[in-house]
Amino acid sequence: MKCDVNSFTWRTHTCGELRSEHVGQQVTLCGWVQFHRMGKFITLRDGYGVTQLIIPEKSPVGYLMKNLSLESVLKVEGTVVQRPLEEQNKKMATGEIEVEVVTADVLGKSKPNLPFNIRDFQKVKESLRLMYRYLDLRTSNLQKNLRLRSNVTMKMREFLCKHHGFVDIETPTLFRRTPGGAQEFVVPTHSPGKFYSLTQSPQQFKQLLMVGALDRYFQIAHCYRDEGAKADRQPEFTQVDIEMSFTSADRIKSLVEGLLQYSWPKEASNLSTPFPKLTYKEAMEMYGTDKPDTRFDMKIIDVTDIFKNQNIEIFDKVLMNKENSSIKAIVIPKGALHINKSLLEKFEEIGKCLYSLEGLVNIFVKEDLNWKSILCKHVSLELQQKLKKNLELQPHTLVLISAGETRNVLQLLGKLRVECAAYLQSKGLNIWNPKDFNFLWVVDFPLFLPSDEGGLEPAHHPFTAPQEQDTHLVYSNPAAVRSQHYDLVLNGQEIAGGSIRIHSSELQKYVLTDILKEDLTELQHLIEALESGCPPHGGIAIGLDRLMCILSGASSIRDVIAFPKSLDGKDLMSGAPAKISDELKKFYFIQTPPSN
Amino acid sequence: MKCDVNSFTWRTHTCGELRSEHVGQQVTLCGWVQFHRMGKFITLRDGYGVTQLIIPEKSPVGYLMKNLSLESVLKVEGTVVQRPLEEQNKKMATGEIEVEVVTADVLGKSKPNLPFNIRDFQKVKESLRLMYRYLDLRTSNLQKNLRLRSNVTMKMREFLCKHHGFVDIETPTLFRRTPGGAQEFVVPTHSPGKFYSLTQSPQQFKQLLMVGALDRYFQIAHCYRDEGAKADRQPEFTQVDIEMSFTSADRIKSLVEGLLQYSWPKEASNLSTPFPKLTYKEAMEMYGTDKPDTRFDMKIIDVTDIFKNQNIEIFDKVLMNKENSSIKAIVIPKGALHINKSLLEKFEEIGKCLYSLEGLVNIFVKEDLNWKSILCKHVSLELQQKLKKNLELQPHTLVLISAGETRNVLQLLGKLRVECAAYLQSKGLNIWNPKDFNFLWVVDFPLFLPSDEGGLEPAHHPFTAPQEQDTHLVYSNPAAVRSQHYDLVLNGQEIAGGSIRIHSSELQKYVLTDILKEDLTELQHLIEALESGCPPHGGIAIGLDRLMCILSGASSIRDVIAFPKSLDGKDLMSGAPAKISDELKKFYFIQTPPSN
Repeated sequence: MKCDVNSFTWRTHTCGELRSEHVGQQVTLCGWVQFHRMGKFITLRDGYGVTQLIIPEKSPVGYLMKNLSLESVLKVEGTVVQRPLEEQNKKMATGEIEVEVVTADVLGKSKPNLPFNIRDFQKVKESLRLMYRYLDLRTSNLQKNLRLRSNVTMKMREFLCKHHGFVDIETPTLFRRTPGGAQEFVVPTHSPGKFYSLTQSPQQFKQLLMVGALDRYFQIAHCYRDEGAKADRQPEFTQVDIEMSFTSADRIKSLVEGLLQYSWPKEASNLSTPFPKLTYKEAMEMYGTDKPDTRFDMKIIDVTDIFKNQNIEIFDKVLMNKENSSIKAIVIPKGALHINKSLLEKFEEIGKCLYSLEGLVNIFVKEDLNWKSILCKHVSLELQQKLKKNLELQPHTLVLISAGETRNVLQLLGKLRVECAAYLQSKGLNIWNPKDFNFLWVVDFPLFLPSDEGGLEPAHHPFTAPQEQDTHLVYSNPAAVRSQHYDLVLNGQEIAGGSIRIHSSELQKYVLTDILKEDLTELQHLIEALESGCPPHGGIAIGLDRLMCILSGASSIRDVIAFPKSLDGKDLMSGAPAKISDELKKFYFIQTPPSN
Repeated sequence: MKCDVNSFTWRTHTCGELRSEHVGQQVTLCGWVQFHRMGKFITLRDGYGVTQLIIPEKSPVGYLMKNLSLESVLKVEGTVVQRPLEEQNKKMATGEIEVEVVTADVLGKSKPNLPFNIRDFQKVKESLRLMYRYLDLRTSNLQKNLRLRSNVTMKMREFLCKHHGFVDIETPTLFRRTPGGAQEFVVPTHSPGKFYSLTQSPQQFKQLLMVGALDRYFQIAHCYRDEGAKADRQPEFTQVDIEMSFTSADRIKSLVEGLLQYSWPKEASNLSTPFPKLTYKEAMEMYGTDKPDTRFDMKIIDVTDIFKNQNIEIFDKVLMNKENSSIKAIVIPKGALHINKSLLEKFEEIGKCLYSLEGLVNIFVKEDLNWKSILCKHVSLELQQKLKKNLELQPHTLVLISAGETRNVLQLLGKLRVECAAYLQSKGLNIWNPKDFNFLWVVDFPLFLPSDEGGLEPAHHPFTAPQEQDTHLVYSNPAAVRSQHYDLVLNGQEIAGGSIRIHSSELQKYVLTDILKEDLTELQHLIEALESGCPPHGGIAIGLDRLMCILSGASSIRDVIAFPKSLDGKDLMSGAPAKISDELKKFYFIQTPPSN
């Protein structure tokens, strides 16, 4: 069945639809006045495109247009005519034709001088765009992003629901706090002192659904986290939430690969599966991060052995003084041509402030393969040759070397790798192809991480299962346990995370009470559920906003969300959050400090 | 493509899948132990059905079962064998076969003596079912309802998104209060004294999307209303939310008819469209309600003219004393056989308490068409004949007559009509066919209703457009204006409501300020949007919980929701809402009264 975007309306066609084949047809179009000229031409726009209208001379329609502001809404009836060949506009989808207007009605007047024009080439400040979001939505960019998002989620639903028998189940968002997670919003109730928490994810519910024999669950779920002003996060966001029983981590990975392949838009490049896999350890060692951008190389290289015992003071000091120390490098092709002193100073500052690393050594490799570097006077010619060979140095390469505690060195170089790549990309070097979508699984994460209080905290969440071969370590050496968690990374951003869950009530109780020191009362229902015949199960949550942001090439998730909040959680259009009446506070038994 | 419910799992088939055609196959099943007998038989259940397993004699599997509680989770491998003809169970979908077990693994033990057994014939108290919802979900009834719900919404999405180009757009739920609606939950923020409101519907957003040229919007939207303990309502609920530009009320009705027809399950009866239509006035006069159950007749009949000036004191008193008074009747076939005195007393009580109506006159029509009624001594034989003819009285009919203010009489008889029908249905009379789905549009509602404060309030919401021919009355006689609102009624319950909206900023401002006396500041953004080129638009919201409840024959919407709240808004499983920490209160700048 063909998709009919004109059914149940007055129009016969959209403003993006007419072609040569329609010439001679009587049509009705509805849309916004994008331009009009001399009472002779109108460009009519809707969410699908633009069409040029011609107004016959001395027509009352020309008169009607005289006092009409741009962005007013028109309904026009007319005849499709071919444009003369020299007037055809190849850049415009409807550029072969125009519509000779017979009648026109003004459906909705616009006031003159709107806060900004709906033209894509105009750069409008984001706060203004958010304040008048209903105008911004008319731009072809937001139209494209929101329509793409709808199409992608529809394909996902088809794959899950129609082809693989998943059941779309809505779960509540007014619930009880889940311990050990993000900050959750609270909602006062008419019971004094009692609050709901807005769920940060359907995690508990999806596990309870597995206990309840709904063994193939999915939901495109609205979630809430009160994360304050974190960059490119939203207080409410969407995840494609999936859970299955009687499955394994690898099977879930295959499912997700199939899902993304099926729902990936035809216009984008094809996805090849299976996606590559790295262990957490490998990712950290090669990329200094658990979400490596694998669209480009520049991996971190260990050069400890090369520099060890070479009487280079800065390095020897580090290696002698600290355990778990090393010297590592990244090699940036063409970096010597573009990365300047002030950028290097910024990098050094990052090392100092974020990772307590003193000194970032650089080597500028010249055209003739000679070096410009502080190292020159410290290292032998032999060592230089060794480095050249090991790092495969080419003319104009920039080498950045950091020494110190291994963990910090990796993180710094991981960060600088991405910064340098982005900088070179912005300078026009093809570090990556903008059409590349590089997916990567990261696996074998630790189950627990050291917490600020000196104990352990869950690396992901307290319901993640340990790897089978590590289960015995849970009781003896929990910090060494690897988990059955997996992250999916796309172009250096985490877009999904999931795991096989703990389905043994004993193990879950041990993890919560003995390791994490959590109060069980808040999770009593989950423990009881695990005691009532719980199948092995696992799942994943895909961050839909982030995925759509990368897929549509948007610069922020706010450009793939119809009505996003500003960075500080405000709705700039309506002014939310806002003060509420004293009556309402009384109704909910809450008081707030006197307002200024 | 066939739907594969076993992909990405360990099993080869579900417990509801095996038939004679599978005999001889090696299969792997996973499920819950429903029964086991003598170490010889197991009934294994999952969300798809049950399969009988046979354990070979002296097999270790038999030993394994000895100490295993019911509801434990098993994975079994075995061979499908035909049951002897005399042992085949026609009532069981898999009753032709059984599976001879080769190996079995216990995947998840259940403790013995769960709070209730998962057997459909068992009647378990609802509070217990809610407290252990994960057990209740295993019952075939909830499995059926939730799977049906998922299938129906998938079909709806197909119809809207794939066949008619609607765009699925998520809208925020953390927003600013919408004046003139239901009680909205509030959410404190980290800005002292400032709150979000949880949206009661995407009404404002969907109108803003129309202004933003997203002219075919839909969303299966999560909504919030703090309505306290209203019967069969939930604090969070779901509506299928639709809005279109460049359309009319009749076109939207056609869209909804097409949508329901397309997504209606094959197992249910076919829907024939268009659905019948009644005006609000007709509905009130014939059924005493704006949501008539049209599965049965028993319409309200006006008998004022028959009883007027007949010297019947009880009637004359009413007609003389009050304006807008009348005498009306309902005729209940077979009612005289079933409706007894105590029920009639209850009916009279309803009239007194809810509608201030004294006396409910009844006529029991006997086998020989003679009457038993208090009226007998007051009315002439001639009048009796006239009534017989007008009301088409048959043997054993019960007539209920009420006199008083017309509005109250209609409402009382409307209520008694439904009560009597339900009572007779419960007594086994075929008042309606349980497979009937009677849809009905109710139209031509008043735009405003008298408010408790003596002014006017919106009959539906303040954005509803008046009918074109009544627009002038908005300024002169607003109480007389009919709106472009339409309700969709199914079997006597309102399941959808929508309207053409006001798209003129002047009219919207007039309605909000001059008629409804609302403060415009909260809606300034909407008014500005209407001034920026707003297309004519309208839409509808379908109450999905209610629709699925009626469609699946459930007795409460709680039976079509995975994790519903109890009548008083509690989650009995987790104990939400719950107390929160003082730390959290401080973080959100709120205080609550000292707790007991």
